Amino acid sequence: MKIIVQKYGGSSLATAEKIKKVAQKIAALRRRRKGTSLVVVVSAMGGTTDKLINLANVVGKSQEGELLSGGRDGRELDNLLSTGERVSSSLLALALNSLGQSAVSLSGGEAGIITDKVYTKAKICSLDTNRIKKELKRGKIVIVAGFQGVSEEGEVTTLGRGASDLSAVALAKALDAERCEIFSDVKGIYTADPSAVDGVRKISQISYDEVLAMAGCGARVMQGRAIELAKKSGIPLSIRSTFVKGKGTIIGSLPTKFAGKFVEAPSVTNVALNEKEAKVSVFRVLDRPGIASRIFAPIARGGINVDMIVQNVSKDGYTDLSFTVSDEDLERTVKITRKIAKEIGAGKVSFDRDIARVSIIGLGMISHPGVAARMFSVLAKNKINIKMITTSEIKICTIIRRKDGKRALKVVHKEFVE
Amino acid sequence: MKIIVQKYGGSSLATAEKIKKVAQKIAALRRRRKGTSLVVVVSAMGGTTDKLINLANVVGKSQEGELLSGGRDGRELDNLLSTGERVSSSLLALALNSLGQSAVSLSGGEAGIITDKVYTKAKICSLDTNRIKKELKRGKIVIVAGFQGVSEEGEVTTLGRGASDLSAVALAKALDAERCEIFSDVKGIYTADPSAVDGVRKISQISYDEVLAMAGCGARVMQGRAIELAKKSGIPLSIRSTFVKGKGTIIGSLPTKFAGKFVEAPSVTNVALNEKEAKVSVFRVLDRPGIASRIFAPIARGGINVDMIVQNVSKDGYTDLSFTVSDEDLERTVKITRKIAKEIGAGKVSFDRDIARVSIIGLGMISHPGVAARMFSVLAKNKINIKMITTSEIKICTIIRRKDGKRALKVVHKEFVE
Repeated sequence: MKIIVQKYGGSSLATAEKIKKVAQKIAALRRRRKGTSLVVVVSAMGGTTDKLINLANVVGKSQEGELLSGGRDGRELDNLLSTGERVSSSLLALALNSLGQSAVSLSGGEAGIITDKVYTKAKICSLDTNRIKKELKRGKIVIVAGFQGVSEEGEVTTLGRGASDLSAVALAKALDAERCEIFSDVKGIYTADPSAVDGVRKISQISYDEVLAMAGCGARVMQGRAIELAKKSGIPLSIRSTFVKGKGTIIGSLPTKFAGKFVEAPSVTNVALNEKEAKVSVFRVLDRPGIASRIFAPIARGGINVDMIVQNVSKDGYTDLSFTVSDEDLERTVKITRKIAKEIGAGKVSFDRDIARVSIIGLGMISHPGVAARMFSVLAKNKINIKMITTSEIKICTIIRRKDGKRALKVVHKEFVE
Repeated sequence: MKIIVQKYGGSSLATAEKIKKVAQKIAALRRRRKGTSLVVVVSAMGGTTDKLINLANVVGKSQEGELLSGGRDGRELDNLLSTGERVSSSLLALALNSLGQSAVSLSGGEAGIITDKVYTKAKICSLDTNRIKKELKRGKIVIVAGFQGVSEEGEVTTLGRGASDLSAVALAKALDAERCEIFSDVKGIYTADPSAVDGVRKISQISYDEVLAMAGCGARVMQGRAIELAKKSGIPLSIRSTFVKGKGTIIGSLPTKFAGKFVEAPSVTNVALNEKEAKVSVFRVLDRPGIASRIFAPIARGGINVDMIVQNVSKDGYTDLSFTVSDEDLERTVKITRKIAKEIGAGKVSFDRDIARVSIIGLGMISHPGVAARMFSVLAKNKINIKMITTSEIKICTIIRRKDGKRALKVVHKEFVE
C-alpha cells in the first residue's frame, strides 16, 4: 500500500473556510494519485489550544497561585487540550465527505498511538496501525487528531506543544509512508526568521541535524522530537506552505548541496533567536562526581527540559552551575532546584528571565574555530554583552540580554548569511 | 454508598468564572455531606454546541446543500459535538482540584454509557458503573460529560440535544442515587414561560406525566426522554437554579397537592408555547390498515420524531394525513415523505412552517370536557384560528398561526391560571 502522510498546522485550519480549502487540496491530490492512500494529521484550529490553556488557568489556579502541572491536573488538562484536534479532525472529515471523498477522523487513541503516562508531555511507546489500515483499505482518507494519544490504561494524553509534527512522523514511520509533508503558513525553512530579519533566503535542502539544532535554538520550524524521530527512521520531510504553491524545504540525511562537492568553508545555514527562555543558577555546588545528575534527574522527572548547561571551573572544590529552561517551566524548575540545593548543601539558587539566545547553525562548524570568534566579535562590535556560551559540532549558542535579542539576530545574520 | 447526582446546564457553565462558582457550590455540598458521594453531569459551556454545529454546517454542506445527517457524517458530527462536554467536564474538575477537592472528569464512554449506533440521536443500551464507583471509592468527585456515550464498537455517539438531562437520570438510576438535581438558570417549573407571560406562578410539586406532556408541547423545562426514564425508574427530580437560592420544583409520581385530597375540579398546571415546529401533510392516502406505519416507519428510521398526528375522516376510501415535526427536521422529513408518497401512490405532500402550538397541561382534564371547549372559546374570542387539535388524558394541544402564538399563550394562561 502506497501511503502519503500529510500534516496541517493550526493556522492552515484556523477558520471553516480554510478547512474547506485544505479539504479541496487533499481531494485534488486524491484524484491525481488514485492508487495512493492518504493519512492526514491535523493540529487544532489556530488559537484553540491557547484559549483552552487560558480557561484552564482561570478555573484551575489555586489560591497559592500554583501552576498547573502533572498528576490529577495533568490528566484533566490533557483531556481538555485534546479536544482541539478532535474538533479540527472531525471538521476536515466532514468537509471531505461533502466533496464526495469518504473520510474518517480518528482521535490519537483510535489511531493506535499508545503513550506513557507523563501527562502534557507524554512520549509515544507504540503505534498499532490496524485501525488506520482497515479504514484505508475501505478507501477512506484517514484524518488523525495530532498531538495526542492514550496511555495503556486508556487515559487521554498529549505529547507537548507542537507535537502534531511528531504524530505525523510517527505515523509515517509506522505506516512505512512514501513521504511525510508538513504544511503550515511558512513556505519553507529560511536562513533566519523572515518576520525579524530582512534579506533572508529560503533553504531548499537541509540536514536533520541542522534542523534539530535550529529547533533546539528556538527557531520555530518544526518540533525537535519530530525531527529526531524522522532522523532515526530516515523519513524525508518536506516543509511547505498550505496555500502558496512552491517547493518548500526538504529535510534529509545530508543536504544535496554537499553531495559530491569538496567542502572547505563552513556554512552557516541558519541564525536563530529564542526569547522564551530563562536562566537558573545554583551557587557553591560541591564539585564531585554525580552531582549533576543529583540536580538534573529530579528536574527531568518533573518533565522539564533543561537546555544549555554551563558549569564554571571549580574553585576550592566548589563550582557554580547555570542552565536554561523555557519561560513557562521556570517557576516549577526554581521550586525543584531550591529543594535539591538544600538537600545537597549547595548555596543560593537564583534565576534570570532577562535573557535571549542567539545561535548560528551549520554543518562543519567545529572544524573552523574562526566561526565562533567571528560571531563574538560581531556582537562585541555592536556592544552586545554575552552572558553564556555553548558550542557543539553544528551550532554556537550565546545568551545575551533579552532587549538585545532582535538586534543581535540581525547583525549576526548580516555577517554570516547576507 | 450514598450518592447524589447533580446536573448543571450550559448557561451555568458559560464562562470560566461561572465554572469556578459551580465548583465552589459543589465543594460546599461536599463539606456539608461528608459521607455522600457526588456525581456531577455537565452540559457544554453555553453556546458551544451551536458554534460547533455552525462550523460543521459551513464545512460540511455539499454543493446540493444537503443537510448533515446519519451515516459517516453522523459519526463525525458526534465526534465533534462530544468535545463540548469534554471541555466543560475537564474545566470543572480542574476548578474542584484547585479548591482542594479531588475530582476526575469522565467522558460518556469512560463513564460506562453504552449506546446504539444511531449517531446524533443515540439511545442508551447499558450503563457500566464500575469506573465511576472505583473513582468514588477513591474519594473523587466524578464529573461526567453529559449528552454522550460510546457504541459497542467504541465509536463516540451523542444522545440528542438536551440529553445531558438524560445522562444524569440514567446515572442516578444505575447508581441508585438518593436524589437527582437538575440545575440551570431557571428557578423551577412555572405555569407558563415567565419571559413570555406576566403573572406566572412557580409550581412546587408536579407529576412526571405533566412534565412529560409539557416537554412534548415544547416547554423547555427538561428533556422528554430524561423525564420518561425518571418516571420509569421512580427517581424524584429536583429542578433548581444554580446561582439563586430557593426550593425549585420537585417532579415525582404524584403532586402532593392531590395527596389525601378529594379532587374534583380539573387543574391546569401549565400553558406551553412551541414556535419551532412545522406541519407536513400527505393528501389522498389510500385508507387501509398498515398505511400509517408505511409512512411513519421510514421517518422514524431516519431518527425523526413525529409529534402530533391528525388523520382526516376517510372519503371515497382515501384520507389526508397531517403531522408535525421540529423545524430542523423538516427538510429531511419532506424528502422522505415524498419518496414514500410516490411508492404508496398517495397524492401531494405539502409543508407549512407558519405554525405554533399552544397547549394546556394538567391532571384530570379528560374527565372534564368543558376544559377543551373553554380553551377553544378563549382562542375564538381573540380571533385566533385553530388549524389542528389533539387531546390526551392530561393535555390539549392546538396548532395556530405562528404570529398568533405569543398572544394565544397569554390569553390562555390568563383564562386558566391567573
